[in-house]
Amino acid sequence: MPTTESVPPEPGSAPDRGLGRRALLTGGAAGLGLGAALGLGGALLGGRALQSGGGSETDGGEAGFGGEELGCHGAHQAGIVTAPGAHIRFLAYRLLEDTDADALARMFNILTGDIEALTAGEGPLADPEPELAARPARLSITVGVGAGLVERVSSARRPEWLGPLPAFTRDRLGNGYDDGDLLLMVQADDLLPVAHAARMLERDLVSFAEPLWSQQGFRQARGAEASGTTMRNLMGQVDGTENPSPEDDDLASLIWLDGSAAGEGWLAGGSALVLRRIRMELDTWDQVDRPGREQTIGRRLSDGSPLSAPAASADERTPSDFEATNEYGLPLIPSASHIRRAHSEDPGERIFRRAVNYEQDGESGLLFACYQRDPLSQFVPIQGRLDELDLLNEWITHTGSAVFAILPGFREGETLGASLFAR
Amino acid sequence: MPTTESVPPEPGSAPDRGLGRRALLTGGAAGLGLGAALGLGGALLGGRALQSGGGSETDGGEAGFGGEELGCHGAHQAGIVTAPGAHIRFLAYRLLEDTDADALARMFNILTGDIEALTAGEGPLADPEPELAARPARLSITVGVGAGLVERVSSARRPEWLGPLPAFTRDRLGNGYDDGDLLLMVQADDLLPVAHAARMLERDLVSFAEPLWSQQGFRQARGAEASGTTMRNLMGQVDGTENPSPEDDDLASLIWLDGSAAGEGWLAGGSALVLRRIRMELDTWDQVDRPGREQTIGRRLSDGSPLSAPAASADERTPSDFEATNEYGLPLIPSASHIRRAHSEDPGERIFRRAVNYEQDGESGLLFACYQRDPLSQFVPIQGRLDELDLLNEWITHTGSAVFAILPGFREGETLGASLFAR
Repeated sequence: MPTTESVPPEPGSAPDRGLGRRALLTGGAAGLGLGAALGLGGALLGGRALQSGGGSETDGGEAGFGGEELGCHGAHQAGIVTAPGAHIRFLAYRLLEDTDADALARMFNILTGDIEALTAGEGPLADPEPELAARPARLSITVGVGAGLVERVSSARRPEWLGPLPAFTRDRLGNGYDDGDLLLMVQADDLLPVAHAARMLERDLVSFAEPLWSQQGFRQARGAEASGTTMRNLMGQVDGTENPSPEDDDLASLIWLDGSAAGEGWLAGGSALVLRRIRMELDTWDQVDRPGREQTIGRRLSDGSPLSAPAASADERTPSDFEATNEYGLPLIPSASHIRRAHSEDPGERIFRRAVNYEQDGESGLLFACYQRDPLSQFVPIQGRLDELDLLNEWITHTGSAVFAILPGFREGETLGASLFAR
Repeated sequence: MPTTESVPPEPGSAPDRGLGRRALLTGGAAGLGLGAALGLGGALLGGRALQSGGGSETDGGEAGFGGEELGCHGAHQAGIVTAPGAHIRFLAYRLLEDTDADALARMFNILTGDIEALTAGEGPLADPEPELAARPARLSITVGVGAGLVERVSSARRPEWLGPLPAFTRDRLGNGYDDGDLLLMVQADDLLPVAHAARMLERDLVSFAEPLWSQQGFRQARGAEASGTTMRNLMGQVDGTENPSPEDDDLASLIWLDGSAAGEGWLAGGSALVLRRIRMELDTWDQVDRPGREQTIGRRLSDGSPLSAPAASADERTPSDFEATNEYGLPLIPSASHIRRAHSEDPGERIFRRAVNYEQDGESGLLFACYQRDPLSQFVPIQGRLDELDLLNEWITHTGSAVFAILPGFREGETLGASLFAR
């Protein structure tokens, strides 16, 4: 696999990714020279050496899960079908005007090093606070690209689906959470490594791109969930029951691109992400009685079981029966309910959802992320039906929308995104 | 202990705090009548009954720590010396103009019920989404009052220290994070119960007070810490080493009010909280080399050990020796370093710190909360020294400041804050 060429060699590189390299660099940085002003000598770093490492789900060896590493290498990027972190930050960037293909190749080279270091519990090159990276708590950093980035390399390589979605009538976009050239998803079970990684990535992107928007989402804390339950959203609903499982045989054909479409060979192993910001009107939602809210969704609030099955014998895994009727012949799951409208008989018209809750400036909602091969044939028809009719629409509004091509995975020695530049 | 009288009795009250009461109330709420419009019958709540409970550190019985309850009753409120939650939300309110002493008594009665229910994993009265309360993850709700609230009951009961702190020369306040009449601190290891509790409390306060400001802080996730280490702040420092421990014999005399001061009998068992919002200039801080940053603090970044002890044999628990000098006679801990300037020889001039990190709109910093008997004789002299001279001042700015009287604890059957109204 071709890699980029224009990156200067790292001082004290590969064999010594750990403290030594960092000590060299941070000790040598000119800084504000306070140490020198105080008449201080050499850089006594002290303390334990920070663990290097990789691979899947390794543990740094200290008590608590903070030392666990998820590993960043593989056919697919981490952070998509791997266990969801309790916290995720979506960071979108706009490329600077003079960031051309050569600069992008340099940028991906730097990002690759940052991701390899941070997910392994090390500070990236010249990290001034490597201690904040030392306990990654299953940190993953997943990278996607927007249409604008692909076109700086090759218009022919832009997939048809990569760009703004067709307009939906109920969308109220334009609030600063749309589109973007580059997306970083920083995810972990602990906010501290998320905060630190986001900062280091932003620092290293500064000569290539500028922050466009960021969105912070959460789900239940690691270890707080009852076993085997699906996340609840801020409306109180069990959210995401009807979702393909990472163990399902057909998940791969739903979400991973195989590169067979013209010009899309470079995306084999990648995916297509749709991210929607969905505001919830909780104040009016809370005024609806429980039966009304359950009819709106099609599921019981208590346990997420479908209304088509008796409460006593059903749970959230019970399949929905949209044909089941009550004694008056009315469907037990209303035909305008959310799950009925979202449902498709076409097994190819499915998506893999990874939604999280958000709260910001007194607003609550859902950051709805979903993965697929082709948003135009998977997300769009589903959302089209919901946009047309969904009882839930009275209390939700889509206020942000973005589509990104999630880059294929990379192996040790490879560079993330390299296939975009291959001839 | 006197309690307030003007609160209407709760329907289906004490013996049945659980699902029955909620079912009655939520099923009976008029709402938007969607259920009725859909021709739907009674409220079939289904699912498991939500656990009632109290006491310290009980577990709801399901896997994961989410079911753990901290208990809200006792001589002191929970959330001060109890184990810190991974997330804390500080919610300040301004009283409405017509909220008089009678209204305040009603308000505290309602707050008491809310706190008892939410911390026990139940929704409070008429909670539309009790499922979001069901896994409190050690939720605590701690209540403080500002000068404005006390004066609506009795000016004679306002402690001298309850009000804005004396001005410090470096303070840059006035950004909407100062003062307040009422403070709620909502704390848990999981953001979901925090979000839900905050929403329910705001709903129940709506006829008494309006939101003034809110601040959200975090520390390492529960279970993510290496054992026995102190929190790191976003500057990478081990933050809070030199802090009295909840196990210390003299902690009580430092933080818990004994009610002996004139007019302050009602506060016996309470405390005085100072909350400072401290912005960090991470970009310029990161330009300082490590020795410079360590000299600024007086501790090593690697492990928080004081610079007065050799790195090899010291850790963060090693006592600081401010007299120790190097071969040139210069103090090993610089005389202008943060820990040197913060240190007092007077053992009474100490505070109990509970700082958390914050990130908001691209800004990073520390929400510095500390407890004491008297801010004027404990926090103020410490901060006065730091304000005058502290190497760290180049990278931090205090941008918010508030003082609250933390109410005494309450026992089952008692009402939080009742002593304020006692004759």
